[in-house]
Amino acid sequence: MYEDLKKRVYEANLRLVKYGLVILTFGNVSEIDREKGVLAIKPSGVDYERMTPADMVVLNLEGRVVDGHLRPSSDTPTHIYLYKSFPGIRGIAHAHSDYATAFAQARTEIPCLGTTQPDFAPGPIPVTRELSEEEVSSDYELNTGKVIAERFALLDPIQYPACLVAGHGPFAWGKSGSEAADNLLDLEKIAKMAFITRLINPEARPLKDYLLKKHFERKHGPKAYYGQGKEK
Amino acid sequence: MYEDLKKRVYEANLRLVKYGLVILTFGNVSEIDREKGVLAIKPSGVDYERMTPADMVVLNLEGRVVDGHLRPSSDTPTHIYLYKSFPGIRGIAHAHSDYATAFAQARTEIPCLGTTQPDFAPGPIPVTRELSEEEVSSDYELNTGKVIAERFALLDPIQYPACLVAGHGPFAWGKSGSEAADNLLDLEKIAKMAFITRLINPEARPLKDYLLKKHFERKHGPKAYYGQGKEK
Amino acid sequence: MYEDLKKRVYEANLRLVKYGLVILTFGNVSEIDREKGVLAIKPSGVDYERMTPADMVVLNLEGRVVDGHLRPSSDTPTHIYLYKSFPGIRGIAHAHSDYATAFAQARTEIPCLGTTQPDFAPGPIPVTRELSEEEVSSDYELNTGKVIAERFALLDPIQYPACLVAGHGPFAWGKSGSEAADNLLDLEKIAKMAFITRLINPEARPLKDYLLKKHFERKHGPKAYYGQGKEK
Amino acid sequence: MYEDLKKRVYEANLRLVKYGLVILTFGNVSEIDREKGVLAIKPSGVDYERMTPADMVVLNLEGRVVDGHLRPSSDTPTHIYLYKSFPGIRGIAHAHSDYATAFAQARTEIPCLGTTQPDFAPGPIPVTRELSEEEVSSDYELNTGKVIAERFALLDPIQYPACLVAGHGPFAWGKSGSEAADNLLDLEKIAKMAFITRLINPEARPLKDYLLKKHFERKHGPKAYYGQGKEK
Repeated sequence: MYEDLKKRVYEANLRLVKYGLVILTFGNVSEIDREKGVLAIKPSGVDYERMTPADMVVLNLEGRVVDGHLRPSSDTPTHIYLYKSFPGIRGIAHAHSDYATAFAQARTEIPCLGTTQPDFAPGPIPVTRELSEEEVSSDYELNTGKVIAERFALLDPIQYPACLVAGHGPFAWGKSGSEAADNLLDLEKIAKMAFITRLINPEARPLKDYLLKKHFERKHGPKAYYGQGKEK
Repeated sequence: MYEDLKKRVYEANLRLVKYGLVILTFGNVSEIDREKGVLAIKPSGVDYERMTPADMVVLNLEGRVVDGHLRPSSDTPTHIYLYKSFPGIRGIAHAHSDYATAFAQARTEIPCLGTTQPDFAPGPIPVTRELSEEEVSSDYELNTGKVIAERFALLDPIQYPACLVAGHGPFAWGKSGSEAADNLLDLEKIAKMAFITRLINPEARPLKDYLLKKHFERKHGPKAYYGQGKEK
Repeated sequence: MYEDLKKRVYEANLRLVKYGLVILTFGNVSEIDREKGVLAIKPSGVDYERMTPADMVVLNLEGRVVDGHLRPSSDTPTHIYLYKSFPGIRGIAHAHSDYATAFAQARTEIPCLGTTQPDFAPGPIPVTRELSEEEVSSDYELNTGKVIAERFALLDPIQYPACLVAGHGPFAWGKSGSEAADNLLDLEKIAKMAFITRLINPEARPLKDYLLKKHFERKHGPKAYYGQGKEK
Repeated sequence: MYEDLKKRVYEANLRLVKYGLVILTFGNVSEIDREKGVLAIKPSGVDYERMTPADMVVLNLEGRVVDGHLRPSSDTPTHIYLYKSFPGIRGIAHAHSDYATAFAQARTEIPCLGTTQPDFAPGPIPVTRELSEEEVSSDYELNTGKVIAERFALLDPIQYPACLVAGHGPFAWGKSGSEAADNLLDLEKIAKMAFITRLINPEARPLKDYLLKKHFERKHGPKAYYGQGKEK
């Protein structure tokens, strides 16, 4: 019944391995079928090499498993909360990739230092506030979704396809699980280049605003002319 | 009609992937056939894994597509302007490779700290000035070519096969698309080693001028004795 | 007689290669069969590519070879001492992996800057004191085991599956040789991310204690809900 | 006549590629047959992928080609001078590997910060002085050999299997071309770990002398007990 969705999610999860964004059982990708009201996600703590499409776990938006024989990723409540909060997205990816996670650990937004970034998002990559002790002790993973949504009160998640959770790591999203995984790779590259840039020149200035807007618009605006016109 | 050129450009683009200089759909390589007055270039926003030689786009020097079913790279006007400005080159490569892009983002030329560099170019790798708001808002990609050419007013593009565009990233060139891709790889290595060197010793001095000249001349001068004598 | 143990240890050693944690003949993994009172370990100075399961060396806990035609790893006395000191472990891995070794060389514990770390251990990764001249001149490898055990006087080796030996490098352990190798990979990633984080922000604060405990407990505590419930 | 030597040198050169120490046509490895009074070396500027064992160039110690159809590496006079100066060595490898070259560019010896280093050499890795203008303008490559030998006036090249040439890069040597390539890889790792260590703690102290000696002796001394006793 959910074979196609599970296969897509399986393949999107393997992108994290191919891209070098995960080791061992780290990371997870999900995709939602909004028509059917279900999402599929990687099972918790399972090795990527032994994983099969049949191992993906399908849940409804109340978090109840409707298909699958394994426990879903422990981060599932975060994914579900984000799908509810950001109606325009259909895939979410999470990993502890080195550079994006380091910015999250440093509780530092990723500054916009070059044109690679507005090809991705129209400004610095945001960081959430830290969760309080109460938010951690009960419904921790749900509250992780909430602080991301809170950070996006004034930001458009379609324009900004990623967020750093303070002290934890990055979440990225997109129109599918695969696009979410691609966005996580893009984010990692942006983070790495910002890191190198600031070590070359700690005073490196952010990109001029008119150049930032130009690059974002040429790829994502209504008159976008990057790409073949069939994608975002 | 342009099968050979398209195949060459296709293979030169795949070098960027093999060399680890690009992710996703980033980057582009072109090659010009000066006799026929056309260039071939990567299509815009197309995945390297699904790309075929037939997907390469052939244009004349007015920027009109003369062969191909896809949109050319959005950076095509930069390539065309450079082919017009630098008559001695036949291939151009562009990527947001980590270390060269970080120097471009830091708006810092790559200092000449060791002999690896004069094997490539006889001095620091130049950075353009930033584009003005007007230059960005109209004909942005054409003006990117113009600021590179402007930076080369007193530099020989045959001697210096690369330039960093401030806040953007590197362009490299050569006698073919493949050589341009190779030069981009060489540039990335030089940038990475300069980065490491300056972190080891922020006061590291540039290479002595007589050693710089020796290395450049033994590989590129009229009495060059590096290589098998059939190449530059 | 020990075929199964030797095959397991052989495969665990090859994980170090696959994970990029070793070059040449560096590193070693062992596993103990506590029922039979023997351990198997990589032979000393043997190339990973030419190594076979039959080359693994089996020893009893007095350090006498009971099966095998090669000399055991020179670090064998360290392994044996740790198996005697930490009854709950069954596998040990050692490598000079870049980032964990650099922290050991800097004689700096790895600070706990993000949630990746309490998924691994509930606090900073400890460093031993330096060995004295006397400890080095006689029974050096045995004394290496002793300073690790000494450092764990107040730490639980089940909770902390790794230690940095000052000026030397990391040792990791687990319920098997393979798990020890996996823990060494995890440790290397944590070390690399701590390194990057501190360069982004030298003042980056340790993770809040309540978040540290939450992450450790959800994976390793009595009410753990990470994974499929069959592993630690 | 020299088929075996050429095949060995060919394979030793390919190790540089496998180890990630070279790009494009960079680097070279040679091996000497001291009985026959000839050495084989990589041809100059030839691509590793297209290279065959038959392309290796055999020269006598006066630098005259005795077998081969291509020009030898432009660094050949450096190799020959080192074979004459260091009678105990039989292989030499050179590459512009990132971290060792960066230390050479920083004109900084690689400090001995951990036990990985005395497994390789009993102290800091030396750097030559810079060549004078006269030394560069005539017989540059020969003089590169001379400044290395000069730097080893008080050092044993059997104990120290590598040297950094100031502003240029590393040369390593050993009992064969393959061992020289392996030593270059070991050197690169040591350089990378020293780099990371000093960024973690700029005040990181050198390894205690008694520990340095212990590690060197257990692998290279008369009572060495590392390895299987058939190698150095």
